[in-house]
Amino acid sequence: MVLPKVGLFHFHVESYVCDFTGKATLPVMTSFLLDAASNHAQERGFGYEAISKDNVAWVLSRLSIEIDEYPVSNQDIKVETWIEDVGKFFTQRCFRFIDEKEKTLGYARSIWAAIDVQTRRPVDIIKWRADLADYIVENKICPIEKMEKIPSVDAVEPIMGYSVRYSDIDINRHMNSIKYIEHVVNIFDLIIFKENFIRKFEIVYLVEGIFGDKLKLYRQNISENEYIIDTKRNEESICRTRLIWQKNEK
Amino acid sequence: MVLPKVGLFHFHVESYVCDFTGKATLPVMTSFLLDAASNHAQERGFGYEAISKDNVAWVLSRLSIEIDEYPVSNQDIKVETWIEDVGKFFTQRCFRFIDEKEKTLGYARSIWAAIDVQTRRPVDIIKWRADLADYIVENKICPIEKMEKIPSVDAVEPIMGYSVRYSDIDINRHMNSIKYIEHVVNIFDLIIFKENFIRKFEIVYLVEGIFGDKLKLYRQNISENEYIIDTKRNEESICRTRLIWQKNEK
Repeated sequence: MVLPKVGLFHFHVESYVCDFTGKATLPVMTSFLLDAASNHAQERGFGYEAISKDNVAWVLSRLSIEIDEYPVSNQDIKVETWIEDVGKFFTQRCFRFIDEKEKTLGYARSIWAAIDVQTRRPVDIIKWRADLADYIVENKICPIEKMEKIPSVDAVEPIMGYSVRYSDIDINRHMNSIKYIEHVVNIFDLIIFKENFIRKFEIVYLVEGIFGDKLKLYRQNISENEYIIDTKRNEESICRTRLIWQKNEK
Repeated sequence: MVLPKVGLFHFHVESYVCDFTGKATLPVMTSFLLDAASNHAQERGFGYEAISKDNVAWVLSRLSIEIDEYPVSNQDIKVETWIEDVGKFFTQRCFRFIDEKEKTLGYARSIWAAIDVQTRRPVDIIKWRADLADYIVENKICPIEKMEKIPSVDAVEPIMGYSVRYSDIDINRHMNSIKYIEHVVNIFDLIIFKENFIRKFEIVYLVEGIFGDKLKLYRQNISENEYIIDTKRNEESICRTRLIWQKNEK
């Protein structure tokens, strides 16, 4: 059986993954994306387990998410995912969030590297798995702009700090991609989440955080609703994010 | 269609919910339990949404989990759940973790209160929903002892502190049950998780944590493998846990 290039995965928004507004959080929406990506790859023979036989792992490099409407508690949603491009060192994967009535809730675009799990160096994807190109979907639109560079933040005083602990560490012994996002959204007060939602979120992963790292978050307000947040270990940026708030409709 | 009293729910252990040992974490196993409980209740007409029409919410009061073997990345597991007892102010719900080959991985027992969401006071469950007793399963064994009192910890110096932030807060505007557990397991060094697994975990929720609370964790080593961890707001215990480690087999 040949699977379609576009994968479709179903999720249920449990009440206990919702925030105090009764909606799924950005980290939860991100975990749905990663879940869909992981299943899509697994079903087609290039998932975590299959490629670990080659000593290779997928590493998320960049992610850009735009959400018009967050699903609420107890809602069923679907995530469509497909590969948009396969390059020498990066693949691009897109996503679409869809509600029960087939309405689009949002989109996302991600960039992945394949790394050698021993050396942590990038693998030449085309030499390693030329067959991945067979899964490229052309002519399917993901209306998210290509990500631009996220500048560093000049702020001198961190807004928050944390130590990388057990629950932050993933199966690759590095910091879990979703945990960076969870710590970033935690710098905002509840009052902001009450009156607004995160319309757009971009993250670029620069250096892999490890257990015991003491990380500091620096925040810069770019425009009224837009923030850049820099997560640093000493002077070095570990990951950078751009976050745009939008007021709730009355 | 009348649903069976015992519910059976399927889960897939995604690689990104695994810790660095490649196994599902205790907080993830707990989220499977809560997911199963939530679905079991929902299908039978006493889930979050149905009871919120009565201004009532289920609140987890105590949880005791014993796990012989944690599922690994990419494994499918099942959770069986059933109601063992319905009392005036508490219901008891049990769980069994089962692997793909029908082997039992562990059990859990939980105690829930129903509270009035406005007053936060307990509701008399028997007066409110006498029909819940119809779901009691007799003669099904959950080999977990009834939970005993967890004593307070005498330690003067906290081992860790944290502020309750956005991602810790649930749909009821109180701290998420799983987040307490995540912070508790985070007090241990990776080296302990490398050589051992959490064989038994008990938690009693005493006071509901709220946004901005500055909580401190106090740890006491009761015997070689056994710890009591007290999460306090100032002098007051918010929740207490007992945790027993077991050495991995070679």
